[in-house]
Amino acid sequence: MATGVWLVGARGSVAATSIVGAAAIRAGLAEPTGCVTELPQLQGASLPPLSDLVFGGHDIADTPLAKKVDALAAAGVVPARLVAAVAGELASADAEIRLAPAADTQREAAALIAADIAAFRDRHGLERVVVVNVASTEPLVQAHPAHENLEALDDALRSDPVLPPSSLYAYAAFSAGCSHVDFTPSTGARLPALAEMARRHGLPHAGHDGKTGETLVKSVLAPMFAMRNLRVRTWSGTNLLGGGDGANLAEAGPNAAKASSKQRVLAETLGYEPQGHTRIEYVDDIGDFKTAWDLVTFTGFLGTAMRMEFSWHGCDSALAAPLVLDLARLTAAAHRAGRSGPLTELAFFFKDPLGTVPHGLAEQWAALAAFVRGLGNA
Amino acid sequence: MATGVWLVGARGSVAATSIVGAAAIRAGLAEPTGCVTELPQLQGASLPPLSDLVFGGHDIADTPLAKKVDALAAAGVVPARLVAAVAGELASADAEIRLAPAADTQREAAALIAADIAAFRDRHGLERVVVVNVASTEPLVQAHPAHENLEALDDALRSDPVLPPSSLYAYAAFSAGCSHVDFTPSTGARLPALAEMARRHGLPHAGHDGKTGETLVKSVLAPMFAMRNLRVRTWSGTNLLGGGDGANLAEAGPNAAKASSKQRVLAETLGYEPQGHTRIEYVDDIGDFKTAWDLVTFTGFLGTAMRMEFSWHGCDSALAAPLVLDLARLTAAAHRAGRSGPLTELAFFFKDPLGTVPHGLAEQWAALAAFVRGLGNA
Amino acid sequence: MATGVWLVGARGSVAATSIVGAAAIRAGLAEPTGCVTELPQLQGASLPPLSDLVFGGHDIADTPLAKKVDALAAAGVVPARLVAAVAGELASADAEIRLAPAADTQREAAALIAADIAAFRDRHGLERVVVVNVASTEPLVQAHPAHENLEALDDALRSDPVLPPSSLYAYAAFSAGCSHVDFTPSTGARLPALAEMARRHGLPHAGHDGKTGETLVKSVLAPMFAMRNLRVRTWSGTNLLGGGDGANLAEAGPNAAKASSKQRVLAETLGYEPQGHTRIEYVDDIGDFKTAWDLVTFTGFLGTAMRMEFSWHGCDSALAAPLVLDLARLTAAAHRAGRSGPLTELAFFFKDPLGTVPHGLAEQWAALAAFVRGLGNA
Amino acid sequence: MATGVWLVGARGSVAATSIVGAAAIRAGLAEPTGCVTELPQLQGASLPPLSDLVFGGHDIADTPLAKKVDALAAAGVVPARLVAAVAGELASADAEIRLAPAADTQREAAALIAADIAAFRDRHGLERVVVVNVASTEPLVQAHPAHENLEALDDALRSDPVLPPSSLYAYAAFSAGCSHVDFTPSTGARLPALAEMARRHGLPHAGHDGKTGETLVKSVLAPMFAMRNLRVRTWSGTNLLGGGDGANLAEAGPNAAKASSKQRVLAETLGYEPQGHTRIEYVDDIGDFKTAWDLVTFTGFLGTAMRMEFSWHGCDSALAAPLVLDLARLTAAAHRAGRSGPLTELAFFFKDPLGTVPHGLAEQWAALAAFVRGLGNA
Ligand SMILES: NC(=O)c1ccc[n+]([C@@H]2O[C@H](COP(=O)([O-])OP(=O)(O)OC[C@H]3O[C@@H](n4cnc5c(N)ncnc54)[C@H](O)[C@@H]3O)[C@@H](O)[C@H]2O)c1
Ligand SMILES: NC(=O)c1ccc[n+]([C@@H]2O[C@H](COP(=O)([O-])OP(=O)(O)OC[C@H]3O[C@@H](n4cnc5c(N)ncnc54)[C@H](O)[C@@H]3O)[C@@H](O)[C@H]2O)c1
Ligand SMILES: NC(=O)c1ccc[n+]([C@@H]2O[C@H](COP(=O)([O-])OP(=O)(O)OC[C@H]3O[C@@H](n4cnc5c(N)ncnc54)[C@H](O)[C@@H]3O)[C@@H](O)[C@H]2O)c1
Ligand SMILES: NC(=O)c1ccc[n+]([C@@H]2O[C@H](COP(=O)([O-])OP(=O)(O)OC[C@H]3O[C@@H](n4cnc5c(N)ncnc54)[C@H](O)[C@@H]3O)[C@@H](O)[C@H]2O)c1
Ligand code: NA
Ligand code: NA
Repeated sequence: MATGVWLVGARGSVAATSIVGAAAIRAGLAEPTGCVTELPQLQGASLPPLSDLVFGGHDIADTPLAKKVDALAAAGVVPARLVAAVAGELASADAEIRLAPAADTQREAAALIAADIAAFRDRHGLERVVVVNVASTEPLVQAHPAHENLEALDDALRSDPVLPPSSLYAYAAFSAGCSHVDFTPSTGARLPALAEMARRHGLPHAGHDGKTGETLVKSVLAPMFAMRNLRVRTWSGTNLLGGGDGANLAEAGPNAAKASSKQRVLAETLGYEPQGHTRIEYVDDIGDFKTAWDLVTFTGFLGTAMRMEFSWHGCDSALAAPLVLDLARLTAAAHRAGRSGPLTELAFFFKDPLGTVPHGLAEQWAALAAFVRGLGNA
Repeated sequence: MATGVWLVGARGSVAATSIVGAAAIRAGLAEPTGCVTELPQLQGASLPPLSDLVFGGHDIADTPLAKKVDALAAAGVVPARLVAAVAGELASADAEIRLAPAADTQREAAALIAADIAAFRDRHGLERVVVVNVASTEPLVQAHPAHENLEALDDALRSDPVLPPSSLYAYAAFSAGCSHVDFTPSTGARLPALAEMARRHGLPHAGHDGKTGETLVKSVLAPMFAMRNLRVRTWSGTNLLGGGDGANLAEAGPNAAKASSKQRVLAETLGYEPQGHTRIEYVDDIGDFKTAWDLVTFTGFLGTAMRMEFSWHGCDSALAAPLVLDLARLTAAAHRAGRSGPLTELAFFFKDPLGTVPHGLAEQWAALAAFVRGLGNA
Repeated sequence: MATGVWLVGARGSVAATSIVGAAAIRAGLAEPTGCVTELPQLQGASLPPLSDLVFGGHDIADTPLAKKVDALAAAGVVPARLVAAVAGELASADAEIRLAPAADTQREAAALIAADIAAFRDRHGLERVVVVNVASTEPLVQAHPAHENLEALDDALRSDPVLPPSSLYAYAAFSAGCSHVDFTPSTGARLPALAEMARRHGLPHAGHDGKTGETLVKSVLAPMFAMRNLRVRTWSGTNLLGGGDGANLAEAGPNAAKASSKQRVLAETLGYEPQGHTRIEYVDDIGDFKTAWDLVTFTGFLGTAMRMEFSWHGCDSALAAPLVLDLARLTAAAHRAGRSGPLTELAFFFKDPLGTVPHGLAEQWAALAAFVRGLGNA
Repeated sequence: MATGVWLVGARGSVAATSIVGAAAIRAGLAEPTGCVTELPQLQGASLPPLSDLVFGGHDIADTPLAKKVDALAAAGVVPARLVAAVAGELASADAEIRLAPAADTQREAAALIAADIAAFRDRHGLERVVVVNVASTEPLVQAHPAHENLEALDDALRSDPVLPPSSLYAYAAFSAGCSHVDFTPSTGARLPALAEMARRHGLPHAGHDGKTGETLVKSVLAPMFAMRNLRVRTWSGTNLLGGGDGANLAEAGPNAAKASSKQRVLAETLGYEPQGHTRIEYVDDIGDFKTAWDLVTFTGFLGTAMRMEFSWHGCDSALAAPLVLDLARLTAAAHRAGRSGPLTELAFFFKDPLGTVPHGLAEQWAALAAFVRGLGNA
C-alpha cells in the first residue's frame, strides 16, 4: 500500500526537486545519492519504499510544476535529461496540487485543507499521508494566548486569525489524521496547543528546519573543537544565497528566524556561545547554489591563537530534496509503528530540532540508527 | 607516586612545548586547554594527575632546552611571559635529557638507552615511565626478516643494524619495562617482533602519528559526507609547514610516510578512495604555524556537483603538546591497570591508529570515553 | 628643517604605530617596509626625510602613549623589542599631545586647536606642519547650508555647532596655515566651505579614508576583470575586525560611511555596480588583525559562470601607519612646492579619493609617480 | 577579405570553444564577453572583424568536432542551446581540419603542413592566415646545436628529428608565410633559429602560454604588494585541473614546463623570488573547471606578518578561447601593418611573454593599448 506525501509549498524548488528525484530513482534513472534512508545502516523493512510514495500538496502559486522543473534544469539543479523522462509523473503530481484555500475563518480554511488531503488519500487508497511543510519561511510570529492550549485555540480559530499559515497547515494535518514534518524554520507545529493536538490524535511530528549546508558542517566541526578541548572564540558566518528562498529570507523577518536557528548548534555543542554572527545575504546571481563562508578562531594550548575557514558551495534544493524523502518515509513508518508526539530521534535532519537532544551529528546519527532499528522490531 | 615521561626527541618543538605547558599548568599559570583528559567526560581518579608528571628523554642534539623554548616564544608558540616563570622546571628537565647513545651494535645501544631510562626512574622513584617518541620522522624503512619475530630480532641485533632508530627506542623501552607511545609516523613499535615483545613483557603501547590538523578535520568531515550519503569525488590537500618537522618532511622519504598516513582516514570512513592527494610543502617562513588547504568535491541528489574548501591555520606544536600529555597519562594508567598490547581505544589521538578501528572522530571519542571509564573500575 | 605631523586621534592605534615606526626606522632598528615613499621609484630630494618628522597631536583620551604601545606590542602589532628602544621618542611625542579643547563655540574651539598647533610649530621651529586625521570614524553628518560657503560657515561657527569634529580640525588646520590629510571616512575637509578655505589660504589637502585592506585588493582585481572584458556579477565582502576602530564601526552610523566608501571602487573601475554588499562585523577577539572575505562571481565567454574568493588577514594599524608617514611627507612637499587645493594625485592612498580620478591602483600609482617627479622639479 | 585562423590542436577544448564562440557571436547569439579586443579602448578599424575569421587546423585525433563540442556542452563549458545553432559552422570548420601529416623526415613533414595551410588560404581566398598553437603541452625539450641558427636547422631537418612538434608547426607556418602564436608553454617558435626565420620572412609572432587563471591574478596582486612596499615571503600555489590538458600536464615533463612559466611573474614584478612553489595536480572530476588556491604570506611595517589566500574557480577553455580570437586578430593586423619578429606588446596575454617586458598586468595593458593605436595609424 502506498504512502502519500503532501507538500505545503508544492510548487517550490525543494518540492519540485523531491518529486523529480523520487520519479527518477523509481525509474532507475538516478541513484538515491543524498538519501540517508538508503544507506545500508538504515535500510529496513519498516520503511515504505521510495517507489511507493505518491505526491500532492498545496501552494499559493499556480505556475505549472513542469515550468518550475524547467527552471531548475536550466539552473543546473536537476539534469535536463531526467526532466523529459519523468514528464508523466510530474503531470500526475501537478494534478494533485491544490491552491491554498481561502475562507472566512481559519477554522474553515483548516477544514478545507484537511478535506483536500483526505480526498487525496482516498483517491489513491493511501495507507497514510505525511504532510511536509516546504513553503516559504514565514516571519517570526507574535505569541498569542490561544497558542497555549488546544481548547483556546479551537475557540479562537472561529473568529481570529491567530495562526500563521504554517501552523494552520499543521492543525489541518492533525485534524485529517496525518503526521507532520516542519522542514522550514516557520512556527508550524511548534506551539503547545498543536503539540497537544498531535498527542491527542496519536500522531507523530518532526522538525524544524532542514539542516543542509553551513549548519550541517557546524554540527561536526563544533563537536570536534569540543572533543579536543579547544576553545572557540569566534564563529562568524556569511551565507550568500539566491533563488526563491533567498529572496524571501532577504527580508528582515524570516532572516532573523533562520539566522537564530543556525547559531543554536554552537551553544549546544560547545557549551558556550562564541562571538560572531551568521549573516544571510540575498544575491540573485547565486541562484540555488549557496555559498557560505565561515571563520572560526580558536585558542589552543597555552592560549595559542589559531583559525579555520571554510567555504561551502552547495545546491540547496539538491541537498534538501533527499532529506524530504527520508523524512516522509521515517515519519510514515513511525506513524505506522504507533509512535506519537515529537520524533526527537530525527534531530539528525534539523537545524533546530525538537526536544532536548544532542546537536553533534554523530550522536544524532546514532539516535537515528537506533530509531530505525526500533521501528524494525515494531 | 609520580609518573615519568621519557621523550625521544626531547629537545624538539613538541617535546619542549609539552614540558613548558605541564609546568605552567601545574603552577596555575595556564589553563589545560587542548588537554582532552581534562574534559569533564574523561576525568577520573584512574589517571595520574598532570602535576605528577616528571620529564626526561633522549635527543641527538644538545641545544639547551631553554634556548629551544626561547625560539618557540619568539615564534609565538608559547607565551614569553610563561617561559621565565617555569625556568626552574625547564632546567630540571634539561638535566634529565641524555644524548642518544652510540655503541658498536644496536643490542648494546638498546641496553644503554634502557639503562638511561631505568636510572631516571630510580632517581625520581617513579611508579612507572612512559616512553613517547616525538623525534623527527624517519624515512620509510625496508622490510627485514628479523622484524617478523622476537627471537630473530634479538639475534640480528647482535650483528646487524636492522632497526630504524624509532624501533630501537621502542625495543629499549619494552626491555626497560616501559609502555610506549608513537606520536610520529615512523616505524616505532609497528613491527611484529616488537608487538610480540610488548605482549611478553605485559606492556601497553599506542600509536601512530598524532592527529592534530588537517587529518583531524577530515575525521569529522568525511563521516559527515558518509552519514548524508553524499558521494565524495575529490579530496585534495595542500599542507604548508615550516619548523624543524617541516624541514625534515620536505625530504621525499618521510614525506611519503606522512602523506600516506594522512589519506587513510578517507578510505576508512567513506568506504572508497576519492581522487586527489595530500601534498606537504616546506615553507620556512610559515614556521610552526601550518596552513592546510583542502578541496572536497562531491555529488548530491541526481548527481548535482558541489564543493567545499577549508583552510586550517594551526600551530602544530601547540596542538600536539597537550595530546602528548594526554597520551602519557592514559598509557600510564593502562599500564597500571594491567593492560598490555596495542591500545586500540586511543585511536582518537592518531592519524594512523593501531588495529581495525573506526576512523570517524565521534566513534573514536566514544571508544576513548569507554576506555577511561573501564580504567576507573580497575 | 624639520616637518611637523599633527595627529588628530594621536593616542589611537594608527597614530601610535606611526610614531613608534618612525622612531624605529630613524634609529636604524627597522626597515621602512610598507612606506611607499621609500621605494626607489618615488624617492627624491623633494620629500622631507622620514627622520625629520616631529610628532604631536590632539586626542579626547588621556591614556599615556606608552600604555597604548604596550597594548599594541601585546597584540603583535609592533614588536616588543622595539618599544623599549624608542621609549624616549615616545615620551617626547606624548608630551606634545593635547586634550581636544572644549569651548563655548566651535569658533573658539577652532582657535584653541589652531593655537595648540602653532605653539607646536614654534616650539620645534618647524618649517611646516601637516595635520592628519586618524581619529575614530564619525557617523555620517547631516547637510547644513553653512557647509556650502566659507562666509556662511564663519558666521555659523559663532553660534551653532554646525561642524562635526573632523571638519572642525580641518578648519583649525587651515586657519593655522597647515595642510591637511583625511585618513578616515569622516567628513573632514570634504565640505565646499572648507575646500574654499584651503584654496584661499593656498593650502593643499588630501583624502579620504586610507586604503589598506580589502579595498586595496579590489583596486587591482576589479581592473583585472575589466581589462579582460569579464563581467562581474556579484562582489560580496565580509570584514571582521576588532580593536578600537572595529568597536566604533560596529555602530550603524560609521559603519554605513565606511561600507559605502568601500564599494565605490567597483562602480568606478568596472563601469557598473555588481550585486552584493560589504559588511563590517565587530569581533572583539580579532583585535587589530582584520579578516576580510570576498566572493566574486563573474561571467566569461559564452556566459560561463566562474568565481573567485579571497581572504585577507591584515594588521590594519601596521598597514595604515606607513601610509600616514607617506602622506605626511608628500603633503608637506606639495605645500612647500606651492601646491594648494585637493591633491588628487594621492588617490593611490585612499578608498574614497578626492576628485574625478582613476580607481585602478596601477593608474593611481602612475599618477603618484608623476606627482613626485613634478615635485622634484619644483 | 577574410582572415584565416589555423589551429594546431584544432580538435581540443580551447580550439573547439573558440570556433563555437566565434560562430555564436557572429550569429548574434552571444556577447563577446572575455574578448579583450572588443573593449571600447581597443576597438579600431585596424583589426579584422571577428566575423571575418575562418577556421581550420591540424590535430592528431580524428574525433569529429561536433562530438567534442557536445562533451563541452555536457560539461557546462559552452551552452547546449548554442551548439545546435552553430552546427553548420562547426561542420565547415571540421571539414578544414587535417590530420597531422606523417613523413620520413621533419623537412618533408613541414612541407606537408605548409601545403595544408596554403591550400586552406587559397580555398577561402584569405588575405592571410595566423597559425595558433593550442595543442597539448609538450615535455621540456633538450637543447640541440641546430636550434641555434637557421642554416644548421634547415640542414638537420633533412635527417634528424631535431624539433619538437610545436616548433615544427612554427617552422611550417613561417615557411608558408604565416604569422604564429604560441598559446602553450611548449617550445614553439622559441628557438633562435626560428626567430631568425620569422625575421627573414618578415613575419610577426607572439607567445608563450596563455595567461588565464592563477597567473592572471598574480599579475595584478604581485604588483600591488610591490607598489605598497610590502615584502612577500611565501607564494605557494596549488592548481587542480582535469580535462585533456590536465591529464597531459599530470605527467612530470609538461608539468615542469608549465609550473616554471607560472612563477616567472613573481620574480619579475617583485624583484625577488618568494618562497613556495606552484603545483599542478590532475583531478579527473574537476574537468574543465580548474580550482587554484594560492597562499601569500607577507611582511608589513615593523615586520608584522600578514597573509592572503585566494581560490579561483575558472573554466579554462572559456577563459582561453576569447584570447585566442584576440590574438588571431591582433597578430593578423600586425602582419598586415608590416610588423615582424616578436610582438612583445602582446605580453598582456601570456604567462611567459617574449622579450624583456613588464609583467604587471596594468603596464602590459598600457602597452597593448598603445600597440593597437599604433596599428590604427598604419
Ligand atoms: N533548500 C534547503 O536547503 C532548505 C533547508 C532548510 C529549510 N528550507 C526551507 O524550505 C522552504 C522551501 O524552500 P524553497 O527553496 O523550495 O523555496 P521556494 O521559494 O522555491 O518555494 C516555496 C514555495 O512555497 C510556496 N508558498 C509560500 N507561501 C505558501 C503558503 N502559505 N501556502 C502554500 N504554499 C506557499 C511558494 O509559492 C513556493 O512555491 C523554505 O522555507 C526554506 O527556508 C530549505
Ligand atoms: N606537531 C604536530 O602536530 C605533530 C603531529 C603528528 C606527528 N608529529 C611528529 O612529531 C615529531 C616531532 O615534531 P617536532 O615539530 O617536535 O620536530 P622537531 O624537529 O622540532 O623535533 C624533533 C627532535 O627529534 C630529535 N631527533 C631526531 N632524531 C633523533 C634520534 N634518532 N634520537 C633522538 N632524538 C632525535 C631532533 O634532534 C629534534 O630535537 C615529528 O616526527 C612529527 O612528524 C608532530
Ligand atoms: N587602520 C586602518 O587600516 C585604517 C584604514 C583606513 C582608515 N582608518 C581610520 O583611521 C582611524 C583611526 O583608526 P585606529 O585603529 O587608530 O582607531 P583607534 O580607535 O585606535 O584610535 C582613534 C583615536 O581617536 C581618538 N578620538 C576620537 N574622537 C576624537 C576627537 N574628536 N578628537 C581627537 N581624538 C579623537 C580616540 O580617543 C582614539 O585614541 C579610524 O577612523 C579608522 O577608520 C584606519
Ligand atoms: N585553457 C587554458 O586556460 C590554457 C591556458 C594556457 C595554455 N593552454 C594550453 O592550450 C593547450 C590546449 O589546451 P586544451 O585544454 O584545449 O587541451 P586538449 O587536450 O583539450 O586539446 C589539445 C589538442 O591537441 C591535440 N594534439 C596533441 N598533439 C598534437 C600534435 N602533435 N599535433 C596536432 N595536434 C595535437 C590533441 O589531440 C588535442 O585535440 C594546452 O597546451 C594548454 O596547456 C591552455
Ligand atoms: Na576559500
Ligand atoms: Na580561504
